[in-house]
Amino acid sequence: MSDVLPEDLLTAQARIALFIHRTPLFQSDTLNKALGHSVIFKAENLQKIGAFKLRGAMNTLLALKEEGTLGRSVCAFSSGNHAQAVAYAARELGVKATIFIPKQASAVKIAATRACGADVVVTESRQIAEASVAELISKGATFVHPYDNPYVIAGQGTACLEALQDGVEADAVFAPCGGGGLMSGTWLATRLARPQAKVYACEPKMANDAHRSVQAGEIVRLSETPMTIADGVRTLAVSSRTLSYLQRLDGFYEVEEDEIVYWSQWLSHLLKLVIEPTCAMSMAGVVRWLQTQTERKTVLVILSGGNISAETHQAIWALDRLSLLPSLIE
Amino acid sequence: MSDVLPEDLLTAQARIALFIHRTPLFQSDTLNKALGHSVIFKAENLQKIGAFKLRGAMNTLLALKEEGTLGRSVCAFSSGNHAQAVAYAARELGVKATIFIPKQASAVKIAATRACGADVVVTESRQIAEASVAELISKGATFVHPYDNPYVIAGQGTACLEALQDGVEADAVFAPCGGGGLMSGTWLATRLARPQAKVYACEPKMANDAHRSVQAGEIVRLSETPMTIADGVRTLAVSSRTLSYLQRLDGFYEVEEDEIVYWSQWLSHLLKLVIEPTCAMSMAGVVRWLQTQTERKTVLVILSGGNISAETHQAIWALDRLSLLPSLIE
Repeated sequence: MSDVLPEDLLTAQARIALFIHRTPLFQSDTLNKALGHSVIFKAENLQKIGAFKLRGAMNTLLALKEEGTLGRSVCAFSSGNHAQAVAYAARELGVKATIFIPKQASAVKIAATRACGADVVVTESRQIAEASVAELISKGATFVHPYDNPYVIAGQGTACLEALQDGVEADAVFAPCGGGGLMSGTWLATRLARPQAKVYACEPKMANDAHRSVQAGEIVRLSETPMTIADGVRTLAVSSRTLSYLQRLDGFYEVEEDEIVYWSQWLSHLLKLVIEPTCAMSMAGVVRWLQTQTERKTVLVILSGGNISAETHQAIWALDRLSLLPSLIE
Repeated sequence: MSDVLPEDLLTAQARIALFIHRTPLFQSDTLNKALGHSVIFKAENLQKIGAFKLRGAMNTLLALKEEGTLGRSVCAFSSGNHAQAVAYAARELGVKATIFIPKQASAVKIAATRACGADVVVTESRQIAEASVAELISKGATFVHPYDNPYVIAGQGTACLEALQDGVEADAVFAPCGGGGLMSGTWLATRLARPQAKVYACEPKMANDAHRSVQAGEIVRLSETPMTIADGVRTLAVSSRTLSYLQRLDGFYEVEEDEIVYWSQWLSHLLKLVIEPTCAMSMAGVVRWLQTQTERKTVLVILSGGNISAETHQAIWALDRLSLLPSLIE
């Protein structure tokens, strides 16, 4: 499987169905009234491990098992949800997982990954994590890349696919872009189930490598980890594979940090869901897109996850942004 | 309707069904594994207006309408969820609502009550609010008391009733106690649908008037509003009516402020739901009760609401409590 086809998402969906939650859809009457449009949220924060990442990891390990190429151990590096996803998927299939996590990661994420039964190695830096992974691969471990992997992309796309199957008549779909796995899968899902829907990626302005890569027609790599509050999309660069899908999107929205905080507070308040700043970010793009529309639209937003450290909660709530109601008027 | 009978909850349930959400149940595998028991959460934070309070307000106005005693205007005083509940219910029935809110209430709650179409009068104090309400009543407005009202009690009880109807085989039910409306209704619901279940109330230690009232056999009134972080239960006193039900409970748990903060963080983390400290508080009681149990138990927790001001979010997350995992060992 070198390239991913829309149909591969159906295979992925059937493969992972028994291992994941079919997550519910949410909407807020207050928000819809304020905007004059319908915004429907796919709650992947309620997915097992608290994020959509389990879909890709589960699909990858199950596919390799079917192919007979899944070894007795897997490895990954991640400071975020991919770590728990691979650990959880490995435990489900009875294989050993070794996860390298840079020491900057929050204690609660390290504990959660260990709670899934993985060996967690805390490393000084991402470079050391990558070198350690290379050594394990040379000894026969199966490496699960967080996004540059066709099975991961197909798995991530099943979140959007479910929402479309569940009847969301989306005119546009919005999701956050880090390495591009979720965006690639989301684009594929719309081609399969709702080709008329536009697909937009949202990215922090201070971590806009994906947008710049699409503009440049080649991978633009950040020189250091951008400290955006949207910690799910601090990736340094997309891959050739994900870039090929990102180039087919209808557009990118670059979002300011204070917009991310604003929507983190408001979505928490309106939906009563704990969602990461990474996915709250999408609402800034949604509002800008809706401002250009003349008819009532339906928008699907993929809420990618809900794993937030106490430190990030503090940053989100440092200032009260709930006094300024959402609207389409800036 | 002077006293409330368990059967009155079925009437209330049928009456309000089309106006409220039948809220979902949640549980956390991680929590259940850590405790060695099953804890099931009724998510009234996902109720319309973000709290169970709509049930009681809706039941009251609908019942009065059936009786032909609902005037053309209603009034209430509240700094919390009851304000929005009465405003919302009045709008549904096309009657005017005047809600008196003390100025200490958060701007977002005032805005939300206004957004339901109510006239909101911000008063200098609770005393002034009470006097203003008395004047309106003398002019013919219908007053909706937040808890000392049989229809309110029956309405609030439908939250627990739904959970029991949905198959929760509860050995014990836990809910927070302010004025006692939710607790009275919850006790009635168990008599109707699961009489073998124990029912426990949880109260902040610094606002323990209900527990002391039960111990004294008469209403103990706090001299001033207790500034517990559980702002949903800052009520000064229960009523004779609610006390008569509270006396039939299986017990009270008095909870420290730092326990409320601890469980606010952990339930947010485990369930990915935004829940008020008022209902997170119940978990401290649950853990203490489970420590006395020798067999595996199923506990139902009523998550009463999810309306949190930015200020309260700041207070919840001021210190990181996520490093200490929940367990039954203290």
